[in-house]
Amino acid sequence: MITTAESAQPGSAQLDPTERLLRACRGDAVDRPPVWLMRQAGRYLPEYRALREGTTFLEMCRDVERAVEVSLQPIRLVGSEAVILFSDIFTPVPAMGVEVDFQPGPVVENPIRSLGQVEKLRVPDPTESTPFVFEILRTLRRELEPSRIPLIGFSGAPFTLAAYLVEGQGSKGFSTLKRMMDREPEVLRALQSRLTEMVVGYLSAQIEAGAQVIQLFDTWAGLLGPRAYREWVLPVHSEIVSRLDRDRAPLILYVNNGAHVLDEMLESGADVLSLDWRVDIARAARRVAGKASLQGNLDPRALHQTREQIFASVRKIADAAAPARGHILNLGHGCLPETPVEGVRAFTDAARALGETTS
Amino acid sequence: MITTAESAQPGSAQLDPTERLLRACRGDAVDRPPVWLMRQAGRYLPEYRALREGTTFLEMCRDVERAVEVSLQPIRLVGSEAVILFSDIFTPVPAMGVEVDFQPGPVVENPIRSLGQVEKLRVPDPTESTPFVFEILRTLRRELEPSRIPLIGFSGAPFTLAAYLVEGQGSKGFSTLKRMMDREPEVLRALQSRLTEMVVGYLSAQIEAGAQVIQLFDTWAGLLGPRAYREWVLPVHSEIVSRLDRDRAPLILYVNNGAHVLDEMLESGADVLSLDWRVDIARAARRVAGKASLQGNLDPRALHQTREQIFASVRKIADAAAPARGHILNLGHGCLPETPVEGVRAFTDAARALGETTS
Repeated sequence: MITTAESAQPGSAQLDPTERLLRACRGDAVDRPPVWLMRQAGRYLPEYRALREGTTFLEMCRDVERAVEVSLQPIRLVGSEAVILFSDIFTPVPAMGVEVDFQPGPVVENPIRSLGQVEKLRVPDPTESTPFVFEILRTLRRELEPSRIPLIGFSGAPFTLAAYLVEGQGSKGFSTLKRMMDREPEVLRALQSRLTEMVVGYLSAQIEAGAQVIQLFDTWAGLLGPRAYREWVLPVHSEIVSRLDRDRAPLILYVNNGAHVLDEMLESGADVLSLDWRVDIARAARRVAGKASLQGNLDPRALHQTREQIFASVRKIADAAAPARGHILNLGHGCLPETPVEGVRAFTDAARALGETTS
Repeated sequence: MITTAESAQPGSAQLDPTERLLRACRGDAVDRPPVWLMRQAGRYLPEYRALREGTTFLEMCRDVERAVEVSLQPIRLVGSEAVILFSDIFTPVPAMGVEVDFQPGPVVENPIRSLGQVEKLRVPDPTESTPFVFEILRTLRRELEPSRIPLIGFSGAPFTLAAYLVEGQGSKGFSTLKRMMDREPEVLRALQSRLTEMVVGYLSAQIEAGAQVIQLFDTWAGLLGPRAYREWVLPVHSEIVSRLDRDRAPLILYVNNGAHVLDEMLESGADVLSLDWRVDIARAARRVAGKASLQGNLDPRALHQTREQIFASVRKIADAAAPARGHILNLGHGCLPETPVEGVRAFTDAARALGETTS
């Protein structure tokens, strides 16, 4: 059941998985959309739960051998066609000089509220502060080479990291953060600028270590209306997009709950916009047309459907996404712990079936 | 500081608060937008907290005297220009034959998962099952008559009530509900149909008891993508819109997190679309134009701003909303417990200041 070693000859009807993903990101012609799932290495897999037993998520992220193993599980077990670095968006943050506890969401001992605190934040050399991240990536690249399965690196976006750092922890409304936007914009601006430096260095090092595609996760930016998003989030995304070597690794931008800021996501210059399931992908595809590729956007809860329903949903999404210059099949959110494994398998099979009909 | 007894003569520059709200709902000319706040009778007010002490929210809802008192507080204390029934969206549900506990969100003893359970649900006469609701409304109308402050009734929408009844309680993703949509659509359809009967009866009785405007709250419908929303939510809204006596009480439709379903909200035929703060109200106003009025949509967290900032934000929203046929100033979500009272006061003052400049 492993999707490996498909024909890699140029001009062949079938592309290898790396070519297919890279071409889809850049809007070049492909035989069919590539497929992977956000949070595909996760608790819905009994094999993942077995490996997680007796250890915390954080420990797993630093345990190169186990992190590599869980990263590869979805290839073998559910036929995913890309591997994403197993890590947490907060992995690179403690080395900046912030005490972070995980319970299991990040909890910041001393939330950042002043310019003085921001100025004390270091921008460390990521290969020194989180060497395990790059060892995981290098090992994965070696392991994946024979199958030509592509490797995706990622980072949390500065706004989302800042949201946690200012608020102290996840929150329904991030009122401290929003107050800072109004009352002390210079503190948040300085914090985002420091985080942007960190993120650019961290992602560049991931590309250096073998990541072939980068995904930037902005979990909380969707909390802002379009006007505030344009002021606080778009410039940061644009800067990251322009400073990464996107010839080596195209960039996918995911904004959770971002149906209302699609125009702004497009303006960032990201190669691929990863859509929440709430976005009508047909409308989005017409809007982005030749300017960006799309990723998404099946509701993860639809993986409870029957195999036939999932096939139909995937075909519908692929058809709807066709006007965009490229499309990567994925969910509109991370795969949930209660997801049936057979639903995930049906999802990736459905992507492959699209190729069979069109070729 | 009470905004009462403004000139009520027709043709006068200043409308009375009831005329202003009704005209804004229907798209008739007004001197300036009326203003009120969702969850204006709430914990941000020390006077509310004092009255709540030693009692639960539910007990308050059944205690006519106290419910009336907290409903009126925002008029006197923060200059709001409308009163909304003090109640909970689950108030009419137990009489249908469902055991509901509040901890403090609704928790359903035996979640509804089968057609047999749906068929056992009663649609009671609301004036018999929740007489206190109508007594609160009648008392409020009497109290408000001299000031001509209008009275708003409300109900939770069937989809949101069904979401709780099926899931058993609030949930991040409502996966049981979504599974039912795929696997046993007939159960959810029957449940929504029963709830629609209940809601229509409940709201009609509120109009009978003196509610001059109705707001329908669909807290969870925004979880659906546009396709699913169109299938599961829009027909229910349309039915409610068509069955209520909107000549007596226009209908405001609020869909939480509904930026992506504005077209569908418009299609329901509701008189007013109440917008989440995430919606760009300028774009929404151009889209609805003469077809609907808008309500909203300041981010409640913006009430932490300075008085000057709040005045500027309100002016910006009012200008942006101008292309719609009418506009009611409100927040993009309920007022939060940590909101400063002076921020709320600045918000309503800012609405009144709009009138001073334009007249």
